[in-house]
Amino acid sequence: MSRIDGRTPEQLRPVTIERGWSKHAEGSVLVSFGDTKVLCTASVTEGVPRWRKGTGEGWVTAEYSMLPRATNTRGDRESVRGRIGGRTHEISRLIGRSLRAVIDYKQLGENTIVLDCDVLQADGGTRTAAITGAYVALADAINWSRDNKLIRASRQPLTGTVSAVSVGIVDGTPLLDLRYEEDVRADTDMNVICTGDGRFVEVQGTAEAQPFDRTELNTLLDLAVAGCAELTTAQRTALDSVLER
Amino acid sequence: MSRIDGRTPEQLRPVTIERGWSKHAEGSVLVSFGDTKVLCTASVTEGVPRWRKGTGEGWVTAEYSMLPRATNTRGDRESVRGRIGGRTHEISRLIGRSLRAVIDYKQLGENTIVLDCDVLQADGGTRTAAITGAYVALADAINWSRDNKLIRASRQPLTGTVSAVSVGIVDGTPLLDLRYEEDVRADTDMNVICTGDGRFVEVQGTAEAQPFDRTELNTLLDLAVAGCAELTTAQRTALDSVLER
Amino acid sequence: MSRIDGRTPEQLRPVTIERGWSKHAEGSVLVSFGDTKVLCTASVTEGVPRWRKGTGEGWVTAEYSMLPRATNTRGDRESVRGRIGGRTHEISRLIGRSLRAVIDYKQLGENTIVLDCDVLQADGGTRTAAITGAYVALADAINWSRDNKLIRASRQPLTGTVSAVSVGIVDGTPLLDLRYEEDVRADTDMNVICTGDGRFVEVQGTAEAQPFDRTELNTLLDLAVAGCAELTTAQRTALDSVLER
Amino acid sequence: MSRIDGRTPEQLRPVTIERGWSKHAEGSVLVSFGDTKVLCTASVTEGVPRWRKGTGEGWVTAEYSMLPRATNTRGDRESVRGRIGGRTHEISRLIGRSLRAVIDYKQLGENTIVLDCDVLQADGGTRTAAITGAYVALADAINWSRDNKLIRASRQPLTGTVSAVSVGIVDGTPLLDLRYEEDVRADTDMNVICTGDGRFVEVQGTAEAQPFDRTELNTLLDLAVAGCAELTTAQRTALDSVLER
Amino acid sequence: MSRIDGRTPEQLRPVTIERGWSKHAEGSVLVSFGDTKVLCTASVTEGVPRWRKGTGEGWVTAEYSMLPRATNTRGDRESVRGRIGGRTHEISRLIGRSLRAVIDYKQLGENTIVLDCDVLQADGGTRTAAITGAYVALADAINWSRDNKLIRASRQPLTGTVSAVSVGIVDGTPLLDLRYEEDVRADTDMNVICTGDGRFVEVQGTAEAQPFDRTELNTLLDLAVAGCAELTTAQRTALDSVLER
Amino acid sequence: MSRIDGRTPEQLRPVTIERGWSKHAEGSVLVSFGDTKVLCTASVTEGVPRWRKGTGEGWVTAEYSMLPRATNTRGDRESVRGRIGGRTHEISRLIGRSLRAVIDYKQLGENTIVLDCDVLQADGGTRTAAITGAYVALADAINWSRDNKLIRASRQPLTGTVSAVSVGIVDGTPLLDLRYEEDVRADTDMNVICTGDGRFVEVQGTAEAQPFDRTELNTLLDLAVAGCAELTTAQRTALDSVLER
Repeated sequence: MSRIDGRTPEQLRPVTIERGWSKHAEGSVLVSFGDTKVLCTASVTEGVPRWRKGTGEGWVTAEYSMLPRATNTRGDRESVRGRIGGRTHEISRLIGRSLRAVIDYKQLGENTIVLDCDVLQADGGTRTAAITGAYVALADAINWSRDNKLIRASRQPLTGTVSAVSVGIVDGTPLLDLRYEEDVRADTDMNVICTGDGRFVEVQGTAEAQPFDRTELNTLLDLAVAGCAELTTAQRTALDSVLER
Repeated sequence: MSRIDGRTPEQLRPVTIERGWSKHAEGSVLVSFGDTKVLCTASVTEGVPRWRKGTGEGWVTAEYSMLPRATNTRGDRESVRGRIGGRTHEISRLIGRSLRAVIDYKQLGENTIVLDCDVLQADGGTRTAAITGAYVALADAINWSRDNKLIRASRQPLTGTVSAVSVGIVDGTPLLDLRYEEDVRADTDMNVICTGDGRFVEVQGTAEAQPFDRTELNTLLDLAVAGCAELTTAQRTALDSVLER
Repeated sequence: MSRIDGRTPEQLRPVTIERGWSKHAEGSVLVSFGDTKVLCTASVTEGVPRWRKGTGEGWVTAEYSMLPRATNTRGDRESVRGRIGGRTHEISRLIGRSLRAVIDYKQLGENTIVLDCDVLQADGGTRTAAITGAYVALADAINWSRDNKLIRASRQPLTGTVSAVSVGIVDGTPLLDLRYEEDVRADTDMNVICTGDGRFVEVQGTAEAQPFDRTELNTLLDLAVAGCAELTTAQRTALDSVLER
Repeated sequence: MSRIDGRTPEQLRPVTIERGWSKHAEGSVLVSFGDTKVLCTASVTEGVPRWRKGTGEGWVTAEYSMLPRATNTRGDRESVRGRIGGRTHEISRLIGRSLRAVIDYKQLGENTIVLDCDVLQADGGTRTAAITGAYVALADAINWSRDNKLIRASRQPLTGTVSAVSVGIVDGTPLLDLRYEEDVRADTDMNVICTGDGRFVEVQGTAEAQPFDRTELNTLLDLAVAGCAELTTAQRTALDSVLER
Repeated sequence: MSRIDGRTPEQLRPVTIERGWSKHAEGSVLVSFGDTKVLCTASVTEGVPRWRKGTGEGWVTAEYSMLPRATNTRGDRESVRGRIGGRTHEISRLIGRSLRAVIDYKQLGENTIVLDCDVLQADGGTRTAAITGAYVALADAINWSRDNKLIRASRQPLTGTVSAVSVGIVDGTPLLDLRYEEDVRADTDMNVICTGDGRFVEVQGTAEAQPFDRTELNTLLDLAVAGCAELTTAQRTALDSVLER
Repeated sequence: MSRIDGRTPEQLRPVTIERGWSKHAEGSVLVSFGDTKVLCTASVTEGVPRWRKGTGEGWVTAEYSMLPRATNTRGDRESVRGRIGGRTHEISRLIGRSLRAVIDYKQLGENTIVLDCDVLQADGGTRTAAITGAYVALADAINWSRDNKLIRASRQPLTGTVSAVSVGIVDGTPLLDLRYEEDVRADTDMNVICTGDGRFVEVQGTAEAQPFDRTELNTLLDLAVAGCAELTTAQRTALDSVLER
């Protein structure tokens, strides 16, 4: 079976990670997985939420949102509706949890980093692109904070790297990194978040039509682990280049 | 290692499924997994949401909530705060998705069934108890609807059964059906939703402290599949008894 | 005239008061007036609202709510609508006022007790059942607080007991403790809250169809005072039994 | 005991009822009970709320609100806080119920009348002034609707008149029509709404400090019934004058 | 061309400024521009918003609102809708900005003055009437604060006076102080806020139908400046009279 | 006086207008005025708001928003706060009004076009950049709608072009197109929206510190009209290029 864009089942879309996109944020990345484009900014502020004060530990959190016309038909703004939808809540929490998995709160000191992931254009995999891009923005913000003595710890607060990819079973074939047209036709849909050493931070598999069995689950995990490894390389390459501010 | 309540690692807490709890609802179950108690009611109404009208297909959805003092310290009511929190949204969506996985919308006709899962007392595993109990309430509501000719299809709208259980790694030991004290100490926490034939409807694994590897994932899935099989038996036993209305 | 459930006009429904229902709350009662069932929990916290700080006096407040399917047709959740309705506000305020009528704030010290009254099943008289049950939960919470030295006053902060009942005129006959079917047909509907010594804490009489005259008012008050006296006895019996925690 | 403004215990404050205050509304009254001033407007629209359509019956409802600086210290606007408080809800519902007690829905036809009661200046008794004034605005709006053939029934939709007054026990003395300074010091506070023939539409008595007994209740009711009779006369006098539009 | 009320194009409607309208507020004015009536109250409180603390400077802000039936057809209350509309926000901000233009924050000390402008009846020009009346209420509140030593500065915190008027082009003719019927027919609509010495605090001109050219703009500004001068005189006359409290 | 970026007082920042930015929207433009970058998308839907149905006329509206870290310090999301701020409301309304000034509703037919203007990076002049870019996105969306027969009128619905620019007086010097650092120091700040033939759609001038006189107003208008003429040329150049979809 050939995919709509000619990829093989185990092939990622073209991935770009553009650092230093914003002149204001301590870290900022425009990440694209094919036509999915997410602007990730990392904002550092001194202090932590009230329930964490006095612990000497920092905090990392995330907010995900879609521009109204990021999708094929325009969606109402959540600010206009006056409430945040369940999907937005769910993805924001997922991104925050994923990044906190590679943070040593003690080394961060009592500082907070907020990752804003705003989807400028959507074509499937927005949450996985957001996590992959947000990690790079977070790394830049931490480096900035250390350079500017906001973070004074001698040890790096990042304990590893994190990336994410979607996998799914479409017409019986397991596929990596689904586009929107593939995603809506998938029987099973899974998002996998891995550390750079190939362990799991989060695995979320959902049967959209048919329940899936253990063999299918294993095939999807194999695809995802390989995809995350490629994304880890792309993150490292991006971070190795010189960032001009 | 012995668990706080003396269970073995692969042992469920005592499970009770009390049908016909409410005199008003078409289906109602008070389910308990140990000290976790969730009241699940199924409400049937004619008609479907606007986006589904004219399709001849029905709809099943769920709303999860906790009473303010279901937990050890009182939480603010979401009605008082004027907004639903991310966790509530996330669990409501999970319950709805899980139940829809065993529904044949066509057989349901243009009817809607809402499952309300209200946690009266919480001690870990509220979402898995909710899914397990809600399935039974849903089955009762569907039977009621067929008896009362609201659903006229000759075929059963339920295409299978669904149950759910939590698993996690605590102090290096994989455990089934975590209590609250175990849950807060777990390195990895996973919720697994299975059909009665042992396939997966949803797998959600999260590294709370350390990322987990493939071997740990496999051990947790083994535990969960066995736990769901026991819960499936408990659901069948409950549904086989006579329901007095 | 015989009532739908065979009671005489001046007869209460069967009343049960089950203490220690929740393992978390400092006081908890599942109260039932016939098929009306309300879970009342009392939560004690140190400190008082901002406007009361530094006075040395405590505070008691209440929140009333109905589960969506407590009634015959499902009601939308107030958390989903994003706002609390007028009826809920009104009843929450009534319960709080009624309980505060028997509290000596000074003896309470700067502690707050919140009474959550959640209607699990409704069949008329939910607010009066809530007040009657909440009083018992409050008494237990105060005893717990004194045992645990959270409240250090030598004198009992409770200055009396409080119970409540509904009365109404249905087809010309004054009736005690209306069920839902009676309530909707009542010309006049009154809720009366009494102290244990038979005085009034609150009297709320409303003409639903015809205005009522002084004679009718007096007959209703007689019925209600007698009903509250019976409820006071039921509260005392419940509180005299041993509470196992 | 002499009252702060020199009144006898059974004396109302000066009452004025100014009709035709607004050039836009179908009925409008600026009512004052002493320094308490409430602007009551009645707005007539064709049609009824959805749940009442097709019944051939009309609807009357009310909304109460206070300007931010109607009171001695400024209160936040409920529009700014984004939610209506419990007290506002409670009073709006009371006003609506009181007026509906003298409405024959059938004669109204499928029309809706909304009474807006906005407190411009508060000095106790705002809800009773609102009811007393709103009745006159309602009568004017109904007359306007009959003159303009919006209401076509041959019979008057108003089945009676309604007025309201507060009573309370201050320092042991029962008083009629409390000012703010009296209200805050009252042991018992009661609002009584009567029809023009002296029957009760609503009786709401609350023990603010000490519970009250049957004798006190009777004394307060006597005071209130006499006060409402005076207010009924004032309403009639106002309505008998010629209204210039 | 003659105007609906017989005025010449450059003529204001009758303007009245009634000081001391409210017994509670530190400054209060009922201002009318013809049938447009706005109640403006000024409330003084010690302290400033958080972002201004410790600066030694005060703050002045405004909130504008319309009663539901101030207009020809009833509008929903913003408190009931749970949100403030764009028009309300815009006008509140305009009033606040206009008044702050004549305030010396240093002389005010760390005090806040809130101007509430509630439209009791609307007939065009509500925002300009509000500004013109609010200035007088503000002046009274400042005098009260100086008399009562809340403001201790030796110099007057008011650095000038401010008034406002609307102008517009209706059927090709530039008109001063539009009534509602003129406003809805205007091609161009402009609000001009001037200081007493004829300079501009704010100029907001909007093409409702046809874009306007520089000549039209100049004619409108001429009209507005002359109108504001008259309003300045009316304000001075009002403030020169003795205020009885 | 030289400006921070070396411009002369009457010089615009570099302006870029990138059409076809989004693959989903009927019109989309990434506009930049120096470091201010706004993504403008135009979404066409059949049908109009309820109050306009059956008129045969279309509707154009706009929503403005800022990404949380578009500015130097992160702002809370309005969706998280649950309400839209006054500034956002004000600017959204301004953009909508400005674009409607060049629309012939009849030629549009009963179609609605929503312009979403999301500020990705802010450095002063976001509302004027938004209007200038949104006009181009609107033109593209109208062309798309005519090509796709959604709009069937033979005449162009656009009756002209519209662009906008800010001007202000900084340290006594009138400047065109203020950057953020200039904007915060400006005594007077004005936004001017012009049609392509140099007439005014909207003029909004505000005295931030000192009131401004007629001479200053005239100088600012001269600057703005010249700036808008340059922007009109930039819009035409952009629209003359071939748009690849």
